Amino acid sequence: MNFKAPFQSITWNDDHITIIDQTYLPEREVYVDLTTEGQVWDAIKKMKVRGAPAIGITGAYGLYLGLRNAPETSFDSFYNEADRISEYLNSARPTAVNLSWALKRLNATIFAVKDKPISEIKQIILDTAKTIHNEDRRLCKSIGENGLDLIPDDARILTHCNTGGLATGEFGTAFSVILHAHHAGKLKQVWVDETRPLLQGSRLTTWELQKAEIPFHLNVDSAAAFLMQQGKVDLVVLGADRITKNGDTANKIGTYSLAVLADAHNIPFYVAAPYSTIDMDLETGSEIEIEQRDADEVTNFGNKQTAPDKVDVYNPAFDVTPNRLITAIITEKGVIKPNYKTNFEKLFS
Amino acid sequence: MNFKAPFQSITWNDDHITIIDQTYLPEREVYVDLTTEGQVWDAIKKMKVRGAPAIGITGAYGLYLGLRNAPETSFDSFYNEADRISEYLNSARPTAVNLSWALKRLNATIFAVKDKPISEIKQIILDTAKTIHNEDRRLCKSIGENGLDLIPDDARILTHCNTGGLATGEFGTAFSVILHAHHAGKLKQVWVDETRPLLQGSRLTTWELQKAEIPFHLNVDSAAAFLMQQGKVDLVVLGADRITKNGDTANKIGTYSLAVLADAHNIPFYVAAPYSTIDMDLETGSEIEIEQRDADEVTNFGNKQTAPDKVDVYNPAFDVTPNRLITAIITEKGVIKPNYKTNFEKLFS
Repeated sequence: MNFKAPFQSITWNDDHITIIDQTYLPEREVYVDLTTEGQVWDAIKKMKVRGAPAIGITGAYGLYLGLRNAPETSFDSFYNEADRISEYLNSARPTAVNLSWALKRLNATIFAVKDKPISEIKQIILDTAKTIHNEDRRLCKSIGENGLDLIPDDARILTHCNTGGLATGEFGTAFSVILHAHHAGKLKQVWVDETRPLLQGSRLTTWELQKAEIPFHLNVDSAAAFLMQQGKVDLVVLGADRITKNGDTANKIGTYSLAVLADAHNIPFYVAAPYSTIDMDLETGSEIEIEQRDADEVTNFGNKQTAPDKVDVYNPAFDVTPNRLITAIITEKGVIKPNYKTNFEKLFS
Repeated sequence: MNFKAPFQSITWNDDHITIIDQTYLPEREVYVDLTTEGQVWDAIKKMKVRGAPAIGITGAYGLYLGLRNAPETSFDSFYNEADRISEYLNSARPTAVNLSWALKRLNATIFAVKDKPISEIKQIILDTAKTIHNEDRRLCKSIGENGLDLIPDDARILTHCNTGGLATGEFGTAFSVILHAHHAGKLKQVWVDETRPLLQGSRLTTWELQKAEIPFHLNVDSAAAFLMQQGKVDLVVLGADRITKNGDTANKIGTYSLAVLADAHNIPFYVAAPYSTIDMDLETGSEIEIEQRDADEVTNFGNKQTAPDKVDVYNPAFDVTPNRLITAIITEKGVIKPNYKTNFEKLFS
């Protein structure tokens, strides 16, 4: 189905990219032009752009911006320059897998076309960055389309964290399912978990829903159970950071809580994520190490202290939901149902 | 068992009360003297004192402070003055049941001793205020002592919201169980839900635990499930706003969520509350109306906006936990187990 995305987080405009500066959200919608690799580095570093796919796409354009005026005399020095700028861009968010993946892909592409004139190689770099962007757009669109079959009429969908166009090339992942359900006339409303501690639901997902003119209510995370108890939630749809071979899913803290609650209330629980999120090197969720994040995220808000000095804080970045609580996993390659291990193996073979 | 309370939220000092000003918590521990009924009104209005029992106790002392210099010539005019000041104090928090209850009790006492000299009536008012305070102290102590039998060795207790000495005459309700477990050497540590939207866990419970030198970790509400999944929670203990005849319990939003999660992980779930919380006029929780609170509590923090303008917010003050999810209810009269209806009726008869 065709409809216009409610906004573009990243756009190529002739000779520069324009991004929405997410640090101004939700109060102001500000777009900034990035014309140099230094500006791209800064935008990634300062989280003006965030979300794994969006960072990768921005970084890819950044490499082109850094190389477009490079001397065209020697491939070796051009390739060294590509390597130097890639390292520099990568240093803005060293843990962002999509960023290093996009830069590696571009460097491999450059090397593969080393016999062409450098002016032509530059054009190929830009085209590849656009390809990376468009691949993500298509992938997100497919996730939304594939999820549509799972949505009942007048659906009230509960979601967690931000999985929308802000974080991806366009449309988002779980958010794309919501968008498609809306444009198919199947969506009654969305319940948005505010998603403590960083409030991505409250700050970003609500903003995207407003842009898309989709009805929603924002709620504190701990109210989700009460909504389910009252029969106000028809299904849960959210994203994934990593999915293991057996379907166990790591995602934003609070995901496991929702999975248990959905199960207790007989509500379908769907994970929407790119196929690349499935890590066939990990057998089960128990192999995933849980990152503990700074106490400050919980004990401070803006410059306001919300807990006494020196309190001990347990602040896991994500949790792991066992496969048995996941009704289906929605990917760009189709909807995968249990048994996940068997069905993943079919897809990967 | 005997031990000193970690602090006093309200103290009578010869001719005035001293309260801890909760608006400074958790950053600063500030005590203020209240010597007039106007100061008491202000303290209640501005939430320097909060928590139903603490407000009732403060209001009771406030009535004495307002009447101690009243003319001693005519009972009728004294009684009118008592009525006027009671109405005034009540207007600081018209919905606080304990406040109007304490003031009504004092007015009934005044009327009951109307034949005594007014100077003596004044002393009786002060003594009754102290009695109200001491009754709450004893009640809270009994709750803690009664809960002790339910606590295993090396217990890791998860709690929600604030139920401590800040909200009561001393010790608290669920917090009193934690305090007693600690002094009995049975407590390993406490997990403190931050308790969105108003963060009573983060701001107040952690402060009380620090004062009592009890080990704890603060966590976002949605991490509770993950803690349970990892086997890090032995039991849940929290308070109640209202308990119906069949044991259904209304309490701070997030309570029902914890009850479902505890059940799914086979973890005991205890409610600790004064016997007076049981409302024998209500058959089941379905008769309890759920108060919706201001959207601002969710969309703003301090003076920082955390959601776009004009978003719809679902912000229920509390939720209702069905009796089947409650392992036992701890009161000052003993531990009550299911069947609640039968056992409440025995207690009330």
